[in-house]
Amino acid sequence: RRIKASVVAQSQPYWRAIESEIDTFLDKSIPVRHPEAVFEPMRHLTFAAPRTAASALCVAACELVGGDRSHAMAAAAAVHLVHAAAYAHEHLPLTDRPRPEAEHKYGPNIELLTGDGIVPFGFELLSRSVGPARPERILRVMIEISRAGGSKGIIDGLYKEEEIVDQNSRFEFIEYVCKKKYGEIHACAAASGAILGGGSDGDIQKLWNFGLYAGTVRGLLERKGGVEIENIVRKLRDLALKELEGFHGKKNVEIFSSLVAEPSLCSA
Amino acid sequence: RRIKASVVAQSQPYWRAIESEIDTFLDKSIPVRHPEAVFEPMRHLTFAAPRTAASALCVAACELVGGDRSHAMAAAAAVHLVHAAAYAHEHLPLTDRPRPEAEHKYGPNIELLTGDGIVPFGFELLSRSVGPARPERILRVMIEISRAGGSKGIIDGLYKEEEIVDQNSRFEFIEYVCKKKYGEIHACAAASGAILGGGSDGDIQKLWNFGLYAGTVRGLLERKGGVEIENIVRKLRDLALKELEGFHGKKNVEIFSSLVAEPSLCSA
Repeated sequence: RRIKASVVAQSQPYWRAIESEIDTFLDKSIPVRHPEAVFEPMRHLTFAAPRTAASALCVAACELVGGDRSHAMAAAAAVHLVHAAAYAHEHLPLTDRPRPEAEHKYGPNIELLTGDGIVPFGFELLSRSVGPARPERILRVMIEISRAGGSKGIIDGLYKEEEIVDQNSRFEFIEYVCKKKYGEIHACAAASGAILGGGSDGDIQKLWNFGLYAGTVRGLLERKGGVEIENIVRKLRDLALKELEGFHGKKNVEIFSSLVAEPSLCSA
Repeated sequence: RRIKASVVAQSQPYWRAIESEIDTFLDKSIPVRHPEAVFEPMRHLTFAAPRTAASALCVAACELVGGDRSHAMAAAAAVHLVHAAAYAHEHLPLTDRPRPEAEHKYGPNIELLTGDGIVPFGFELLSRSVGPARPERILRVMIEISRAGGSKGIIDGLYKEEEIVDQNSRFEFIEYVCKKKYGEIHACAAASGAILGGGSDGDIQKLWNFGLYAGTVRGLLERKGGVEIENIVRKLRDLALKELEGFHGKKNVEIFSSLVAEPSLCSA
């Protein structure tokens, strides 16, 4: 199964527009306010974390099922915040971590505590979004994001990732780590968008699956493994595209396929 | 204003019964399950954190306003989990922390990630408690707990606490740190219980205030300061008891005063 370069190219403005809206929303939501010593690093670490496709996927999934983009904005922001906190803690210098250190603007204590502050802030933002979104739906999204950002998702991936270095490394294991670290957050984001957009349980499940495959593919592609990893990527890409078949004919559905495209197509 | 030793003594079985129910609830909620490497330390750190009165206060506040204890159980557990995660991270050995290290069962990486997993788990538990509690109320509680556990609450206290050592230390500053670190979590717990029990906005506010004063008193008492700290404690105790006046005649209200009693009465 091939993804057309033209589809990938055409989808870029759509994704960029969503990303810029999420940025604006985050920017407004985290003004530097009292106590500045807390909020200044919070803002910094929020925007310092490299973008994933997860938050944009949340908004796009909401639109795909016919919902209004604004209903998914707080959830998309919460998804990014959970990711940003995990990213900050992943790069925290600890006494038992042998990793090469990236540059840090703040000391470890501040980065630890800031990450700790970012997660509840994301949940608060989401809790406050009643009005555009219905309370029952928000609680369902809360469960999705809690799971993906917690011990069954990203945290499990970060635990296991330590072992990759030691084991020198089975592909299935790398696939597992990428599924936990990238797949689950994309899955929860897509499902959350579908929940907030009023999608059916079937649509929510399909988008969750799509997100899981797509996020895992994106995590694997960053690692640039050998031919075995390429095979896994190909398998997961097919599975992802299969989940989209149910949305055939819907506006924007082709755009989703660009998320699992080969990187060579994306740079075109 | 004096609190009677007999009141303190009589209230102990009430608090102990609530605490044991919360323990049972937590115990059931965190079975050691797959992935064990993640959930075993999660359980350990949940129960290793020293008890605060906050979670019991949550349940008691729910009952005080006429609610059923079971409606507040998930919120009480979430309050404890947020506290336990903060406690684990507070005692994490970091490269820029000069503190004497307590004994650690796990390495820093595991303790960091486990704390990170505990917070979303608490929010998940709370989100799932729809049924006994109403969705709108749960979202309101979510906001309370997010704030108290985040950058306006505990995290702000932990930031500022670093400075206490340096500054050698103004009492107002110590009061501020205790308010953030202990006061806010007790305030949010009491308010959350009142929200879930169906209390009026006035009741919720009074119990929030009571929790703030009571928690700060309890934090200050742990520090054993000089006469200036004793004066602050006395002032806050009076303010706390004043908030309870609105509940005069209600079942159990006397029990609340035991939370701000002198430690000498409690050991009696």
